[in-house]
Amino acid sequence: VDIDAVKIDYEDVLSEVARGLKPNAIRKLTPLLARPEIISLAPGAPSPDVFPKEELAEIASRLIRERWFSALQYGPTRGNAGLVQALAEHLQLRGFDKVSPANLLITTGSQQGLDLATRVLLDRGDVVLVELPSYIGGIVALHNCGARLVGVQQDDGGIVIDDLREKIDQHRQLGHRVKCIYTIPNFQNPSGVTLASDRRHQIIEVAREHNLIVIEDDPYRDIYFSDDAGSLTPLSAIDPSRVIYINSFSKILAPGLRVAWLVAPEPIAAKIEIAKEGADLSSSQLDMAIVNEAMRSGLVNRHVPGLRRFYREKRDVMSGALEQNMPAGSDWTTPAGGFFVLYRAPEALDAAALLPAAIEAGVAYVPGDAFFVDGSGKNTMRLAFCRETPEKIIEGIRRLGAVLRRSLEFED
Amino acid sequence: VDIDAVKIDYEDVLSEVARGLKPNAIRKLTPLLARPEIISLAPGAPSPDVFPKEELAEIASRLIRERWFSALQYGPTRGNAGLVQALAEHLQLRGFDKVSPANLLITTGSQQGLDLATRVLLDRGDVVLVELPSYIGGIVALHNCGARLVGVQQDDGGIVIDDLREKIDQHRQLGHRVKCIYTIPNFQNPSGVTLASDRRHQIIEVAREHNLIVIEDDPYRDIYFSDDAGSLTPLSAIDPSRVIYINSFSKILAPGLRVAWLVAPEPIAAKIEIAKEGADLSSSQLDMAIVNEAMRSGLVNRHVPGLRRFYREKRDVMSGALEQNMPAGSDWTTPAGGFFVLYRAPEALDAAALLPAAIEAGVAYVPGDAFFVDGSGKNTMRLAFCRETPEKIIEGIRRLGAVLRRSLEFED
Repeated sequence: VDIDAVKIDYEDVLSEVARGLKPNAIRKLTPLLARPEIISLAPGAPSPDVFPKEELAEIASRLIRERWFSALQYGPTRGNAGLVQALAEHLQLRGFDKVSPANLLITTGSQQGLDLATRVLLDRGDVVLVELPSYIGGIVALHNCGARLVGVQQDDGGIVIDDLREKIDQHRQLGHRVKCIYTIPNFQNPSGVTLASDRRHQIIEVAREHNLIVIEDDPYRDIYFSDDAGSLTPLSAIDPSRVIYINSFSKILAPGLRVAWLVAPEPIAAKIEIAKEGADLSSSQLDMAIVNEAMRSGLVNRHVPGLRRFYREKRDVMSGALEQNMPAGSDWTTPAGGFFVLYRAPEALDAAALLPAAIEAGVAYVPGDAFFVDGSGKNTMRLAFCRETPEKIIEGIRRLGAVLRRSLEFED
Repeated sequence: VDIDAVKIDYEDVLSEVARGLKPNAIRKLTPLLARPEIISLAPGAPSPDVFPKEELAEIASRLIRERWFSALQYGPTRGNAGLVQALAEHLQLRGFDKVSPANLLITTGSQQGLDLATRVLLDRGDVVLVELPSYIGGIVALHNCGARLVGVQQDDGGIVIDDLREKIDQHRQLGHRVKCIYTIPNFQNPSGVTLASDRRHQIIEVAREHNLIVIEDDPYRDIYFSDDAGSLTPLSAIDPSRVIYINSFSKILAPGLRVAWLVAPEPIAAKIEIAKEGADLSSSQLDMAIVNEAMRSGLVNRHVPGLRRFYREKRDVMSGALEQNMPAGSDWTTPAGGFFVLYRAPEALDAAALLPAAIEAGVAYVPGDAFFVDGSGKNTMRLAFCRETPEKIIEGIRRLGAVLRRSLEFED
């Protein structure tokens, strides 16, 4: 054998999980959206117009000059000790009365919280119940550890409890190990839906009955549009022994600083710490130091109320534009917070197939089917109101309405 | 059943891998080392005295003020596009002539490179060959994906090729899937040993024969103490189709900025990109922007030669102090670069058992057995010369010598 000439079949050297990994729908869209004339309602990124850049620039340079020996050095895997302490104190005032630093960990974005939580909980083939639709990044993290994703119906009040029970029973009967419920209870990505208060308690009951862990992913909590929406009980506060709670500074400060956090029962937090050590040793020490200072100096508290007004105005603008422009037979959500509306076109319509025509007309969205693990949702679109200006949102929805009406006329 | 009263057995809800995770030896030492009178030769962290803090502070505040819309925003999973391009150009001049941006990925520290590489390659039970001793973080990453770690003898020229072949054959005969070789070829952590030039080619031959992938972990490459040591061929340059090459800015700039990079064959890089998306979406955008600017402005190139002199002086000081203070029957390495000496005490001595006495005497080290996956190395210690000043290194080794001599007298 001429060893030098041996070609590698890479499928042969990859892990089973890696062989199954496919690029996700949103990321595939990115190159299409580079043209400046396109109004993009696709990305779920916060508006850079509201990054507190002057304050963050001042904090960053001061921290590097004065505390370089920690801000630029290796540090504990759990995260910046000051930030962990500040979060523990902050959370004790907000319904998480039993949280101590032993429950807390800083992660490299919420995405890492999801990844670590799923890694310490799931073996290949374990069943995780996810909302229909659910967050793509959550779905990717679950696929990465070889989980079996089972979709549960969602209505205007979030997860439908009867369907949750039914799906659990089905998979138990098939001999599958049902391990977790993954939920985004507030202003969900992609639907904008909020989980009703009584269902929060019911989900915990189901988890207790079946010995499940709930992964509660809550990045939009602070971006609420009425005080009512701001007072929703975290599932983690109902039963801290069963919930891994994940939140982030990405939406309330800046996502380029990859700083998020999770709260977990102590034995799980201890395992997550070891898993994180293997995953990246620690998150960015500079980013964590900046966020710590932003919390302690009051910058975060001063900044967030303005964000609520800023995004609420855009939600209102999008709701109004949808009302004016969408064809009959359409349906959409009206989120009480967050960044997203889920639009549901008349059944005949395939949102993925329509995307090239929409881009041609100068507007982009994310076809909803990528969010539905059961392959449904083909007539849905995720419309993000976070990034574009109110004027562009109005024009974008006008363009989208025209594309939809034209397409439906052809169908007829 | 009173559901509220049901206690969780967390072992029951954890994944198989998580149940096996144990805190590592170095991290367990950390609380012991807080006392300021202790000279710590334990941590492998660079000296904060050589962080270019003024330059980094200026870069950070300028980038946030002028490029907040990217430095504080979500960005591509592959990493800052400018930095990927700069690295590709830089590498083409340094023996990696076939590297393009399609082979490159920025990671959250080298540790994430290890984690992602092992995740896309390894299924539970797959065999990975590692040096005796090897880097603890590498061992943790491998445990995290359930790999079977098999130690291969190392001598002054690195991996012993005959033993490598023998171990592969043994495990093939046992029906195990042998998938990877993990090596730190230059100034290894923890031994300081450098892989001989002919063995680099032999390892690639073995990999070709047995269809293995080599994970080449090379964070110390630029911290060499003679030009000879700086010209060592990367395994990745010998056969880019078989090697995942990992390197970092942690040792040449600052580890608190979690910016490292890897080079992999395109099909593997594509899978790693998806795995990274699930793991953290991207590394810190601010950190990557800072490192990009530090490369492009010439800061990195201006900074590194001084680091070589700085760490070489400390290596010399430690070598001299060992010569003067270590008891007869001792042995140690003389690294041609990097941060570490491996000290080997007379066989009778247990380095882990001796640590409390050493700390009592005001000096700390890492007991070597944690680095040996086969349970050997009990009489070894990792002595890091990176962090303490020359004066403290001399005093630390003096203290350690006294502790060792006293202990050996007791043994007699």
